[in-house]
Amino acid sequence: MNDLLIINTGGTFNKIYNPISGELEVDSDGRALESLSRKWLCDEIERINIIGKDSLEMTNQDRLELLHTITQTQKRKIIVIHGTDTMHITAEYLAQSELENKQVILTGAMVPYTIDPVEATANVASAIGFVHANRECGVFVSMNGLIEHYQNILKDRKAGRFVPKVVK
Amino acid sequence: MNDLLIINTGGTFNKIYNPISGELEVDSDGRALESLSRKWLCDEIERINIIGKDSLEMTNQDRLELLHTITQTQKRKIIVIHGTDTMHITAEYLAQSELENKQVILTGAMVPYTIDPVEATANVASAIGFVHANRECGVFVSMNGLIEHYQNILKDRKAGRFVPKVVK
Amino acid sequence: MNDLLIINTGGTFNKIYNPISGELEVDSDGRALESLSRKWLCDEIERINIIGKDSLEMTNQDRLELLHTITQTQKRKIIVIHGTDTMHITAEYLAQSELENKQVILTGAMVPYTIDPVEATANVASAIGFVHANRECGVFVSMNGLIEHYQNILKDRKAGRFVPKVVK
Amino acid sequence: MNDLLIINTGGTFNKIYNPISGELEVDSDGRALESLSRKWLCDEIERINIIGKDSLEMTNQDRLELLHTITQTQKRKIIVIHGTDTMHITAEYLAQSELENKQVILTGAMVPYTIDPVEATANVASAIGFVHANRECGVFVSMNGLIEHYQNILKDRKAGRFVPKVVK
Repeated sequence: MNDLLIINTGGTFNKIYNPISGELEVDSDGRALESLSRKWLCDEIERINIIGKDSLEMTNQDRLELLHTITQTQKRKIIVIHGTDTMHITAEYLAQSELENKQVILTGAMVPYTIDPVEATANVASAIGFVHANRECGVFVSMNGLIEHYQNILKDRKAGRFVPKVVK
Repeated sequence: MNDLLIINTGGTFNKIYNPISGELEVDSDGRALESLSRKWLCDEIERINIIGKDSLEMTNQDRLELLHTITQTQKRKIIVIHGTDTMHITAEYLAQSELENKQVILTGAMVPYTIDPVEATANVASAIGFVHANRECGVFVSMNGLIEHYQNILKDRKAGRFVPKVVK
Repeated sequence: MNDLLIINTGGTFNKIYNPISGELEVDSDGRALESLSRKWLCDEIERINIIGKDSLEMTNQDRLELLHTITQTQKRKIIVIHGTDTMHITAEYLAQSELENKQVILTGAMVPYTIDPVEATANVASAIGFVHANRECGVFVSMNGLIEHYQNILKDRKAGRFVPKVVK
Repeated sequence: MNDLLIINTGGTFNKIYNPISGELEVDSDGRALESLSRKWLCDEIERINIIGKDSLEMTNQDRLELLHTITQTQKRKIIVIHGTDTMHITAEYLAQSELENKQVILTGAMVPYTIDPVEATANVASAIGFVHANRECGVFVSMNGLIEHYQNILKDRKAGRFVPKVVK
């Protein structure tokens, strides 16, 4: 898909277990996406690794870097791999930046790809399927089978998954 | 996604290893889709298991059963899990049946979900993302990162993956 | 093996990912050992779950509980699943307790069974193979392919594995 | 363990899925044992790949090759990875060859390492633990938690696992 760029910013999607420290750490080299592409037997999807952080540590400087990456690529369709805790902050930030003629889909994972690849794979692949068909510009979120404009979806911290935002 | 039905007809996607026979066998109970839904943490996707065969053994009677299942559901968006070897025959059959007002996406896997879930998961999830955004009726195939009208894609048996059909 | 009891005290072997907290937590229900028994297709190995802690949090009270469990069972062969960081402290404690007529093998894992089952499985299974053949009483450690009297083996924290103790 | 050689002859233990043919095939390069050693974080175990067959296809010529490999190594402790269907024939053949001063343990798997590594890993690792402690010469089998002289254990084809031989 020639018109697509995946920007990998880190988050749970990319966490790997470090047996020395006994901790889960964000892999900033994007090996999860590499593994997914190889196993999916698909043509190489263009991708770039930036920031490489847990989303709770993401700063405004990081969001500016993400915005620059989006505005400077000629690709019109952008998938952003992002930590789940501040995904809505980044989505809001990008939406207010009035990106012209861009479709941006934020996605990530509740469970690291290296612990169980299914949820992480499904979140990204459904985002890719969505951008294949979608002609509408704007900022979207793809998580747990939901793909919606970012304002219509949010993380339910107790349930540990994303759910539709209930309109009062 | 209220308007979606997954019809699971069997194929490599559903194969499981039988340690008694030492063979891979099609699981006709759809446990691969159950596992995918549970791990994806998504709302239940309506699904139905029919036929339960390797696609090389699929008969015209089986295709008729599939067609009936599609015409009799009120769902407009249909994903068909299907063996890869005769996916194009079934796609052609469905396309010629002049299904009105239906989007049908055929998908499946080169590697069984139980051996490695990544490719199978990505094929189905990208189909789900596609139908979220797609408003066009017709018969499509989602395999290995490609999602196209069925006439534009085919299985490359030597490479062991689906590729774009080259137009002469 | 009628004469064997596995006492599961916790540690990395039993850690599972909690998607709500984003942390690895010790599963005190012993589901890793249950999975191992089921997949190994073996007769049920008698096992008991006590303590359920990371080994850095293990207290003298916990070690007393372990000692009581060992002395009160009629089983002569005991495998203790234990965290790796204080395995040598517990081994020393048990050795000084002058357990009569008991073979005790401590084992555990550098990588949780739920993240990758291979190392955890191999550590326990090699301990089980060892006690099948060993007639010598005492306290042993089985980690990373080494099975030795506990004084001849230690954790190399930099390398992230157990190694033979070098005698000066 | 300096005195141990693993001779890998093939069998289900080594089967890998070929997505082109859709079949499980014996990998004659021993990648399953390589993966096990790497993940177990153990010192390299000396190993050699010969024959590379499903055990139903193993000939007397193959058994002669195995016997020569055992008699020509200076290692005293030998683990043979072997298909399960004719493991007892090879065991009997080796036992009648009156190997002097050798401990031979045959092992293998009901489920390929690449489909689920737990049973395959546990069978080999328990064999390794056994030879660490065992001083008795002879021909043994390690499968599904049982490690016994080969005459005391057999494959139960209906149950799909090895069981103790019932003495009438």
